[in-house]
Amino acid sequence: MTVVLGPNRYGKAETRVVRVVRDGGVHSIKDINVSSALSGDMEDVHLTGDNAAVLPTDTQKNTAYAFARKHGVEQIEDFALLLARHYVSSQPSIHHARVEIEEYFWDRIPVSGAQDRRHSFVRSGREVRTCVVHHDRDGRTTVVSGLKDLVVLNSTGSEFHGYITDEYTTLRPTTDRVLATAVSARWRHVSADSPFGESYDEVRRHLLEAFAGTHSLSLQQTLYAMGERVLENRGEVCEVRMAMPNKHHFLVDLEPFGMDNPNEVFYAADRPYGLIEGAVLTGDAPDACFAWE
Amino acid sequence: MTVVLGPNRYGKAETRVVRVVRDGGVHSIKDINVSSALSGDMEDVHLTGDNAAVLPTDTQKNTAYAFARKHGVEQIEDFALLLARHYVSSQPSIHHARVEIEEYFWDRIPVSGAQDRRHSFVRSGREVRTCVVHHDRDGRTTVVSGLKDLVVLNSTGSEFHGYITDEYTTLRPTTDRVLATAVSARWRHVSADSPFGESYDEVRRHLLEAFAGTHSLSLQQTLYAMGERVLENRGEVCEVRMAMPNKHHFLVDLEPFGMDNPNEVFYAADRPYGLIEGAVLTGDAPDACFAWE
Amino acid sequence: MTVVLGPNRYGKAETRVVRVVRDGGVHSIKDINVSSALSGDMEDVHLTGDNAAVLPTDTQKNTAYAFARKHGVEQIEDFALLLARHYVSSQPSIHHARVEIEEYFWDRIPVSGAQDRRHSFVRSGREVRTCVVHHDRDGRTTVVSGLKDLVVLNSTGSEFHGYITDEYTTLRPTTDRVLATAVSARWRHVSADSPFGESYDEVRRHLLEAFAGTHSLSLQQTLYAMGERVLENRGEVCEVRMAMPNKHHFLVDLEPFGMDNPNEVFYAADRPYGLIEGAVLTGDAPDACFAWE
Amino acid sequence: MTVVLGPNRYGKAETRVVRVVRDGGVHSIKDINVSSALSGDMEDVHLTGDNAAVLPTDTQKNTAYAFARKHGVEQIEDFALLLARHYVSSQPSIHHARVEIEEYFWDRIPVSGAQDRRHSFVRSGREVRTCVVHHDRDGRTTVVSGLKDLVVLNSTGSEFHGYITDEYTTLRPTTDRVLATAVSARWRHVSADSPFGESYDEVRRHLLEAFAGTHSLSLQQTLYAMGERVLENRGEVCEVRMAMPNKHHFLVDLEPFGMDNPNEVFYAADRPYGLIEGAVLTGDAPDACFAWE
Repeated sequence: MTVVLGPNRYGKAETRVVRVVRDGGVHSIKDINVSSALSGDMEDVHLTGDNAAVLPTDTQKNTAYAFARKHGVEQIEDFALLLARHYVSSQPSIHHARVEIEEYFWDRIPVSGAQDRRHSFVRSGREVRTCVVHHDRDGRTTVVSGLKDLVVLNSTGSEFHGYITDEYTTLRPTTDRVLATAVSARWRHVSADSPFGESYDEVRRHLLEAFAGTHSLSLQQTLYAMGERVLENRGEVCEVRMAMPNKHHFLVDLEPFGMDNPNEVFYAADRPYGLIEGAVLTGDAPDACFAWE
Repeated sequence: MTVVLGPNRYGKAETRVVRVVRDGGVHSIKDINVSSALSGDMEDVHLTGDNAAVLPTDTQKNTAYAFARKHGVEQIEDFALLLARHYVSSQPSIHHARVEIEEYFWDRIPVSGAQDRRHSFVRSGREVRTCVVHHDRDGRTTVVSGLKDLVVLNSTGSEFHGYITDEYTTLRPTTDRVLATAVSARWRHVSADSPFGESYDEVRRHLLEAFAGTHSLSLQQTLYAMGERVLENRGEVCEVRMAMPNKHHFLVDLEPFGMDNPNEVFYAADRPYGLIEGAVLTGDAPDACFAWE
Repeated sequence: MTVVLGPNRYGKAETRVVRVVRDGGVHSIKDINVSSALSGDMEDVHLTGDNAAVLPTDTQKNTAYAFARKHGVEQIEDFALLLARHYVSSQPSIHHARVEIEEYFWDRIPVSGAQDRRHSFVRSGREVRTCVVHHDRDGRTTVVSGLKDLVVLNSTGSEFHGYITDEYTTLRPTTDRVLATAVSARWRHVSADSPFGESYDEVRRHLLEAFAGTHSLSLQQTLYAMGERVLENRGEVCEVRMAMPNKHHFLVDLEPFGMDNPNEVFYAADRPYGLIEGAVLTGDAPDACFAWE
Repeated sequence: MTVVLGPNRYGKAETRVVRVVRDGGVHSIKDINVSSALSGDMEDVHLTGDNAAVLPTDTQKNTAYAFARKHGVEQIEDFALLLARHYVSSQPSIHHARVEIEEYFWDRIPVSGAQDRRHSFVRSGREVRTCVVHHDRDGRTTVVSGLKDLVVLNSTGSEFHGYITDEYTTLRPTTDRVLATAVSARWRHVSADSPFGESYDEVRRHLLEAFAGTHSLSLQQTLYAMGERVLENRGEVCEVRMAMPNKHHFLVDLEPFGMDNPNEVFYAADRPYGLIEGAVLTGDAPDACFAWE
């Protein structure tokens, strides 16, 4: 029997970089979590432990910090591109780099009447912004932006009926339910030159507006409408992939206590939950290559 | 040897209630997590398993849902008071009730140009609002409001020096560091009649402004300033207790790479962390009774 | 209005120490998480930011590591006592120290036929061992040992009936249910000289045997029986405090599918859950002092 | 611009099933977490919200419970196969089913001298067992077994040197370090007829023994050795994929305190961590088809 090495990669995960920009007395902060993964001539290190082709993960951590100082951190996609290109171009043994970054948002603390407080921040609990960049030595580059933990809820405007019934069916159809989910969305850019900051804000807005504006007959329909809305409005995006758990809100039965419950009191359940996953893309989307790996 | 029963209580923890209020087409939601704990004539159930004095935890869950329908949910402190008084007044065997509630905030999803979208919400990731209410059959009542997971950061305006040094000291004094913490604060009300909604908003504002406005020589000083600010401005509050982890942001040493680092690039560490806990109270604060249990 | 400083303490939380003992080729490891909290002359640091009385939390971290090298780590209670006494005796401004330690267990990896593999370990997922030690400058010392995350289940031998019913009752009495809980137990030692290692193993055994051996009419009864068993068998222990969530396992209704369900298929729920807390102590237990703070 | 639906699936995630088997007075329990995901004729539900092709996720939950009663739960792979085949064979609109199951282990509580206590269990904290089964209407079936959270540590026998150095290198080579990781391993079966129980126990044993028995020059080498060992000993397995975080244990510098540290006291870090991922397969492994999706 022969044994062979299959797909592999290695890197440093979750390097937490906080970058402060000091513009006179006014500061701004960028709070990111960087993970890089490299692959290439890695037969020897797996088979014999020879590390001659290995750029250590410790060095990848150092590089993230040094680049934050040298280049600053503006859009996370651009910072990921810088890192990915650096690894591939500087090391012949590294053929491919994948860089993933998460960004956590902060707001300024408003202080009544104070001009001089411009370095105080409160963590905004809104969603996490994400990106995954791939780059290889053949010059192929893919950029996927995204967000996660965007928790949304429609308190009406959602139905569910007309589904298959079988011997294990107990669910009753409904024409008015609460629809809640935590959106994880990732969108693939046509090229590596998108205006990533504006793109993020607009994609997020379209996702939210489509969620709010869709009278839903199923969560799949809502998911598709959200992706479609992004594609129709943002030419720099050619594909959207979403994972949306159906965070069930069950109407509590108050009849035993002599009360009705006209869609007012709900039990928010943890598990199990529905999970809807789907991709929406333009008819002329370029090949995804390794974008989703 | 004799064995005796010491302090005890029992109840239902983490009943997740979502309450929708439908004001015509405009909805609002209240998203809370209710935990109740009762005590009283509980010798028998512990010693022999006789449940005659026990109001089951399942019934406590039902009561939370039924009360949400019957009374609505406005301020969490008022809802907790309703529940606590109900348990003690309706069951002779229950001498004392403790009700704890967490509230999670949601914002409306803004939809451009749409008048008819008034039932769509996005979870605000800001801090969690909390309260703990105690009530006993002698009519004693205490109300503690609070918040947690309020993550704040000052990118300058913080020093640390002049501390004790001993044979295990390696820390260098600094006159400019990042100060970051996740505030957990609880404040005791003088009575059960505070205007809880306004009180919450104002206490939160004072905590944030004092954090931002204090040039800090130690996290203890910041903590005290935050508590003092609340007490000076909010007459309904007589005591503030805070727990503030010092979420260390270490300046990365970039010298090996030929770079300086003028307080710009930081490593955000997870563990270990400093932990500062303290109480600040008014000189004439009434006895805390069982408020902090 | 006057504002005063109330109870306070500060320290370093969650210093993760792994100590390897090398006895020739045979190694053993001790994996602990140390948190220390100090209090004393702390008016100045709170009111003015003067740190002259403050032993920095960074130094507390260093001390934990240095003591691990210098003294080794055997029983966590003994290591906590060493640290607590050191802080109070070495610094006049520190009047009181609280040291809390968690220990994570590892097993040796058994390797068939190999004599030379005596430094390989697999993390045992069993419960976490804990302790909290207090020591003050008046020489008062308390030691509380404990465990947490000890998840146990009886698949029969548990009933629940005879409880109070009111207008919000829907629960049906049962004479056969699944009883499951995650035991958090802490036990107070009569003195600081207990044989902590043997004591831990025996208390754990008694807790498990009492859980398994008690035909339960309520979780309170089980809790009391567990505490009583420990006190009756371990003279070095004078009080046991337990918190036991009732991890509900609901019998699934299979009737709609034409099946019975004779206590065979259960839904393991997450939230809400019952929560039973109680103390059991000997009639002649010494005063608890600050043991439980 | 045209918009098209890409890959999609939907299902019920994390249905927690606890199955008790009552063999006279001796009970045994199976504690599993079932997630199913279906795909097929799903254009309509996405584009128009027509649910005629949708078997609701609620029904999938019910089916998991009903099948646990009807068929029992022995090996999780077999239970997953039953469910996957059921969905595809019973619903024309469902072309493909993916069923993922996690299993949590429990041990019997030993009770000294008692014959009659055979229904009491303590959760074993060892690793989680996993499987993913795919089945489609063309009769293609893949089975991947696995485990996760198997935390292991070698306190010696690990080196790291000979790696690439560049301008961002600060790491020092070492010939003796602690090597610790949390193994996530998944292995693909040649067919759906493996003896899954025995296979699991043996694969786990080989993984552990290879980890313990490999003198490591890099974590990649250890990973490969683990996979190779499995393939050489278990003919039913044709591919192993592993993800192994390098859980860094840094030697604490005790020199400032006048102490040496001969690999005895370590700081166990949380983040960042190295992450090594790789596949090892036999030269004649059949095509993976959709096994890894």
